[in-house]
Amino acid sequence: MDRVGGWNELAAQLAVDSIRSSTAAGSGHPTSSLSAAHLLSVLWSDHLRTDVADPKSLANDRFVLSKGHASPLMYSMLRAVGAITDEQLLSFRTMGSPVQGHPVPLPDMPWVDVATGSLGQGLPVALGMALAMRMDGLPARVWCLMGDSETTEGSVWEAMANASHHGVDNLIAIVDVNRLGQRGPTMLGWDLDTYAARAVAFGWHAIQVDGHDVAAIDDAYLEAEGAGRPALVIARTEKGHGVSFLADAEGWHGKALSAEEAERAIAELGGERAIRISPPKPETGPAPGADGTGVVLPVYTDAIATRKAFGETLAALAARPDVVAIDAEVSNSTYTEDLQKVAPDRFVEGYIAEQNMIGMAVGMQVLGKVAFAATFAAFLTRAYDFVRMAAISRADLRLSGSHAGVSIGEDGPSQMALEDLAMMRAVHGSTVLYPCDGNSTAKLVARMADLPGVSYIRTTREKTARLYDVDAEFPVGGSVVVRSSAEDRVALVGAGITVHESLAAADALAAEGIAARVIDCYSIKPIDAATLRTALSQTGLVVTVEDHWPEGGLGDAVLEALASQGELSGRVVKIAVTAMPGSGTPEELRDRAGISAGRIAEAVRGLLT
Amino acid sequence: MDRVGGWNELAAQLAVDSIRSSTAAGSGHPTSSLSAAHLLSVLWSDHLRTDVADPKSLANDRFVLSKGHASPLMYSMLRAVGAITDEQLLSFRTMGSPVQGHPVPLPDMPWVDVATGSLGQGLPVALGMALAMRMDGLPARVWCLMGDSETTEGSVWEAMANASHHGVDNLIAIVDVNRLGQRGPTMLGWDLDTYAARAVAFGWHAIQVDGHDVAAIDDAYLEAEGAGRPALVIARTEKGHGVSFLADAEGWHGKALSAEEAERAIAELGGERAIRISPPKPETGPAPGADGTGVVLPVYTDAIATRKAFGETLAALAARPDVVAIDAEVSNSTYTEDLQKVAPDRFVEGYIAEQNMIGMAVGMQVLGKVAFAATFAAFLTRAYDFVRMAAISRADLRLSGSHAGVSIGEDGPSQMALEDLAMMRAVHGSTVLYPCDGNSTAKLVARMADLPGVSYIRTTREKTARLYDVDAEFPVGGSVVVRSSAEDRVALVGAGITVHESLAAADALAAEGIAARVIDCYSIKPIDAATLRTALSQTGLVVTVEDHWPEGGLGDAVLEALASQGELSGRVVKIAVTAMPGSGTPEELRDRAGISAGRIAEAVRGLLT
Repeated sequence: MDRVGGWNELAAQLAVDSIRSSTAAGSGHPTSSLSAAHLLSVLWSDHLRTDVADPKSLANDRFVLSKGHASPLMYSMLRAVGAITDEQLLSFRTMGSPVQGHPVPLPDMPWVDVATGSLGQGLPVALGMALAMRMDGLPARVWCLMGDSETTEGSVWEAMANASHHGVDNLIAIVDVNRLGQRGPTMLGWDLDTYAARAVAFGWHAIQVDGHDVAAIDDAYLEAEGAGRPALVIARTEKGHGVSFLADAEGWHGKALSAEEAERAIAELGGERAIRISPPKPETGPAPGADGTGVVLPVYTDAIATRKAFGETLAALAARPDVVAIDAEVSNSTYTEDLQKVAPDRFVEGYIAEQNMIGMAVGMQVLGKVAFAATFAAFLTRAYDFVRMAAISRADLRLSGSHAGVSIGEDGPSQMALEDLAMMRAVHGSTVLYPCDGNSTAKLVARMADLPGVSYIRTTREKTARLYDVDAEFPVGGSVVVRSSAEDRVALVGAGITVHESLAAADALAAEGIAARVIDCYSIKPIDAATLRTALSQTGLVVTVEDHWPEGGLGDAVLEALASQGELSGRVVKIAVTAMPGSGTPEELRDRAGISAGRIAEAVRGLLT
Repeated sequence: MDRVGGWNELAAQLAVDSIRSSTAAGSGHPTSSLSAAHLLSVLWSDHLRTDVADPKSLANDRFVLSKGHASPLMYSMLRAVGAITDEQLLSFRTMGSPVQGHPVPLPDMPWVDVATGSLGQGLPVALGMALAMRMDGLPARVWCLMGDSETTEGSVWEAMANASHHGVDNLIAIVDVNRLGQRGPTMLGWDLDTYAARAVAFGWHAIQVDGHDVAAIDDAYLEAEGAGRPALVIARTEKGHGVSFLADAEGWHGKALSAEEAERAIAELGGERAIRISPPKPETGPAPGADGTGVVLPVYTDAIATRKAFGETLAALAARPDVVAIDAEVSNSTYTEDLQKVAPDRFVEGYIAEQNMIGMAVGMQVLGKVAFAATFAAFLTRAYDFVRMAAISRADLRLSGSHAGVSIGEDGPSQMALEDLAMMRAVHGSTVLYPCDGNSTAKLVARMADLPGVSYIRTTREKTARLYDVDAEFPVGGSVVVRSSAEDRVALVGAGITVHESLAAADALAAEGIAARVIDCYSIKPIDAATLRTALSQTGLVVTVEDHWPEGGLGDAVLEALASQGELSGRVVKIAVTAMPGSGTPEELRDRAGISAGRIAEAVRGLLT
């Protein structure tokens, strides 16, 4: 058989297997798979350079199925390359199978690098991969298959703009323009010219192609590979292509065929096949750089803003060649610029595009980078869906959010993170850290470099006093009892800025003969439940103080920890920001919010009388 | 003085006042204000049709300062139109002043419609306003001033695509291309052609202009007004224009001038002025439609999915002419299509662009619309920054998130909302609802139409049994004790799907002689603390059960409520989803997560032995 015949036969097999697997499952997206069968057939047969037996090799090209609902197509290809068995294919969407409804990277699904299914995320991730390959001098490429509906997601255009600006030439995106979305026609239908005009305006090379003409597809891929810039292959396709009653028909989105319908469809497609292909082998790349040595953490003897300590520690960590940083155009506020100064080739300016920033970090960590992404904590809310998906991707992602709480002062509430702890706690497997001085920040940032999963550090805009010696240790899940006595009548639990306010409150209370314990709860998730439990049982009154809304932050974390330890007995009072703040000085705003030393002491007095 | 001279004089006054106010405050963004002084001068003098004395009039054109950090410019204009005094202007950024660091709509700042300061949000909001005006047949226009840095935000391109697709001709955006961002040059610098090419590719009319040539600006605005489509005025400007040591200089972002520097700058600008202008008056529009009557809520006697009950109730509410709905291309999943069927002119298809969807809803409510926005609850995470800013905008925003939790089944974790309760609880002033049957859903959705602030309803994909009669009432902040007795040894607290699982668990436990109370906590914020407190004191054991991560959801809300009532005594155990789910049937996944009836009963047995 000639190449064209081979590609078409494989495409037919992929279509058939997409139907078989989704019909076996009783759900899934066969028609969205059929539209891209030819696109994938040619890609994996002759363009995607990957070692199926060694899917994690850095030398491989990468494939990102951004239209994750077309998972039957992906799994059908994995069968065709011998990665999974037919039996596994038919376990699609069943409990315990790695052949999940949308692709997820799992130990038994190593050919998937990142979870997809929330649309518009694949391209930012693919861009991160492309940049990581370039950093390592690898000749590999990234291929990203997108649906047409998802091009309305802004994150796609964040990635488009950043990709051309950063001059990547190893990123090829394919849009499967099947013109039908979930509930009817897409915004642009088959208007390929508009897709192309947008891509060109965003600095990409655009190629229009009939997405069911395999020879034309092959040509398009060749052209894209040599474009010298990021390339978008815009493929006109039919949803449900190749089956008379599915092709370009509305009402078939996300529906599996019945057994009878499947039988008819498979017959139209020429029946089942057992074609095996081997994608081209990757070029050998350079050996990865040796681990760096000599990370020397900064040491603080004076007051410093924890955001600055973060930046300086990040710069110190850059002695490790795998450490990279990405920022959203505020590097002189988050102090990622400190890394940029010592390792400019491992700093990526992501501009004001937080979703793409997180997506890039996820892509980079697939290729072994220890990626830190930073912006104002308030603006990480912009990328919550990406953080959520990073957890499903089992990504090791390090986030830094600066300018926490009302303590930023005059800029006002739009710049104040007051929900970030709630947001980050509710991420599966996350670690949430909130240090209060320079030395604890340095130790915790250094730990983040080796933490699995999504970790988050919250930093403060203002300088805060040094509280700890340089040799103090800050294990994740620990806390520091900064002050205690046998006479403590209350335990003040703070984190970050409120540790300092709590200490000052304890001073004021001590002068009145009220002994107060102060706990620095720098690790909010996991949290030091035992120390909190002891504090409640010894004092009978735990007061949590946080520069955050009352919901989902430190107070809720403390209550959860106390409840987890068995029978509750005693009083737990949350002090948090309850009214919408405005502008003011940090001191004024903390006082208004009730989290200043004076207001904390006042609250304790009220509780103890 | 001729028109040109007048515009230039006013621009100079705005520049001077931007410097005066920020220098008085000791912080703020004078240079980002100076770049747009001419643009604003011409706009408010001769194009923005607004009644300063009646800023909330529906007849007014709207102005949205998307680059909210240029607030000194906005406030300087408010002084020039007589809206605020010079003394108020100089109270910029001080505690208690409505002249906040970034614009915020307040009772004493009625000329600001929405909070800005998180970049990239103004255009989606402006689009919502433009659509609302069109729905009401008003001849008004919306003007949106953007910074150049913020055009890298994807949300801008979501709005660009939607605006042209929906054919609005009353939306004019202005980009202040001063080429300098916070930390240095912007991505595109002064490449106005690329801005224009992108705008044109997205279906807009693009006009390039020298942003300091007032006559050219006037021409550009005239051209934009007659473009017959959304228009983008792309203005080449200088940051810090008009002051020798600020103009086009790096290192001046977000810095106030010292008193001495301000004196020099003001001298260069020709000194202080006291020009007063009156913007053109708005055209009189049609009287707003009378309130609709005859909302007849649906009545359920059988099982129904709460998402479907939401859609049917929304359709019933459409009898009110102010009710509108927006969806993100999943209207046949969220059932906003039910409203679309009865009121197609009040349904907006927002395509897959959640940020723009929320922004549009915020813009629409400024003009009096009761806007409901809906998508899968998991994908509302995409728009968290917009929801956060909506709260700062004091917006009345109604959100519906469908497909909650592992109960969606086979699609897998990318489509499962497991953090939405945490996210929505941590929004200032929010209301969080999670009904378990059709009749309670109908009542709660109807209440949402009249709730202030951000309200959120979480709905379930599967059908759930009818639990309540049609005449039952469900006040916000209430709960229903579905089952109780004097012998209860445990109180099971559920919401949504877990109410049904808890009831079945109680049945199983009853058969073993263990009496269990079951509480339907349909209002998660505010929450019925008194009922929960009674349950804990009477049973000594409260078990919360939720289809959500353990953090920030129902369990945390219950703990907070119990702690708020004083001394804690007893045991509170949270059951929630702790392991990353995969595909499976809803029943399998609930069982695996520990939130099935069987697993709940098992947990209770373990706790009581």
